[in-house]
Amino acid sequence: MPYAIALHGGAGRSVGAEPSVRAALERALEAGYETLRSGSAMQAVIAAVASMEDSGLFNAGRGAVANADGRRELDASVMDGKTRAAGAIAAAGRVRNPVIVAHAVMRHSRHVLLAGRGAETFARGRDLGMVSERYFRRTRTSSRGTVGAVALDRDGNLAAATSTGGIRGKLPGRVGDSPIVGAGTWADNRSCAVSATGDGELFIRAALAHEVAARMRYLRQPLAAAAAAALREVSALGGRGGLVALDRRGRIAMPFSARVMARAGIDARGRRTIAVW
Amino acid sequence: MPYAIALHGGAGRSVGAEPSVRAALERALEAGYETLRSGSAMQAVIAAVASMEDSGLFNAGRGAVANADGRRELDASVMDGKTRAAGAIAAAGRVRNPVIVAHAVMRHSRHVLLAGRGAETFARGRDLGMVSERYFRRTRTSSRGTVGAVALDRDGNLAAATSTGGIRGKLPGRVGDSPIVGAGTWADNRSCAVSATGDGELFIRAALAHEVAARMRYLRQPLAAAAAAALREVSALGGRGGLVALDRRGRIAMPFSARVMARAGIDARGRRTIAVW
Repeated sequence: MPYAIALHGGAGRSVGAEPSVRAALERALEAGYETLRSGSAMQAVIAAVASMEDSGLFNAGRGAVANADGRRELDASVMDGKTRAAGAIAAAGRVRNPVIVAHAVMRHSRHVLLAGRGAETFARGRDLGMVSERYFRRTRTSSRGTVGAVALDRDGNLAAATSTGGIRGKLPGRVGDSPIVGAGTWADNRSCAVSATGDGELFIRAALAHEVAARMRYLRQPLAAAAAAALREVSALGGRGGLVALDRRGRIAMPFSARVMARAGIDARGRRTIAVW
Repeated sequence: MPYAIALHGGAGRSVGAEPSVRAALERALEAGYETLRSGSAMQAVIAAVASMEDSGLFNAGRGAVANADGRRELDASVMDGKTRAAGAIAAAGRVRNPVIVAHAVMRHSRHVLLAGRGAETFARGRDLGMVSERYFRRTRTSSRGTVGAVALDRDGNLAAATSTGGIRGKLPGRVGDSPIVGAGTWADNRSCAVSATGDGELFIRAALAHEVAARMRYLRQPLAAAAAAALREVSALGGRGGLVALDRRGRIAMPFSARVMARAGIDARGRRTIAVW
């Protein structure tokens, strides 16, 4: 079976220091694609997203922006297209790799979403890499993008993951679309895997990620048409952003309505893309 | 234009003290229906849900169950079908009427969802009725249901609201479907308004509320067929529960896969239902 991966490092007005962002996208792409040679789609999206969380160049993990109180509150989610199992954390401080904690919520709790201090307590209890506020990079000049990835593995399974630090200066406790299954993240082997980035509140109100899947299942739209139409639903509400999506044949769609979206992918035919503009 | 309302007081294995639950459903129904004579669908669903939150007989507001730490953490959301504006709080302690705080998030913040202490700080800052832990009722013997309502007003606008205390003994910070727009709550004048109750994690993984709307829009299924099919998606994942839904013509659907669902409604033709079994 063919395998494929696509990822984003956020959409917005600019991407900051472009050469280093491109290099970080390439590292994340390789981390995910290498995983797909023998691993699962879920392992691949976690590897790609964790790589971007660690880079400090994106608004996720180490590069996350501060909220109105000057603290980092991190959001992430994962979804498995075969079982539609999902895990997520929201408004969680002090975790090094939110995507790994989200996956642990999926695997090791009976819940899908843990928020705030409960998410931190869960992560600490499982020894999942806690850090202090000093770990986070001062990020005034670098890229401001949420990160995410979608993958298709050799077994034909899809997975999706998304991670963010949210909006700079957000109210404490604010939760955007990234940890919301159906808004920022979706994976279902019957349709597609989706990870979104942009004006999170509007993505929630459009149920963006599930909207792409619903259009494929019920209108029989191909991936690219469904992804573009779902993004137009967000535009109609006044929101901008983008998404990466993948279907079971390893086709990739990466539409965006913002000025730029940092993105990369290798489709089922081996065609590679790394782009910012 | 005709107007209509439907509400639920949770689905599960039993409803506790049946006569008082019926009386509380009837009070909530009257509160919402009376509001619809001159008010909006949003005002009506808030009136109905706040009535059930105050009753102490449901797992929401005063009757909310305790988490693993013995504390109440409350979830609620609202959505306006005309604008698709939405507001929600998750894992918030000390608020008397979570549905009113959710509505304030929609009206008075630039965010859709606030979690944990951030939600409490927001509510306290707007003087939205804070209470101590002693306010909450010891609820071992009464009904265990999430509450919710959907309404259609004279202007043809739909709205939905849902409120819950979550699962007894849940991990602190656990967030179910009730505050998740697209899972527990959805309203869109182009299709329907939905409020769900049941195994929240499975409702999130099925994007239940948005699934009902997508089936109406894209498969052109009537409300009842779309609601039943969406509930079957949850069943396929191993989850049980129910939902109330309303379309723009004031037709009501109230399917459930649990043993019982406390529910009530008055449709556009004035037909009244109050039922538990």
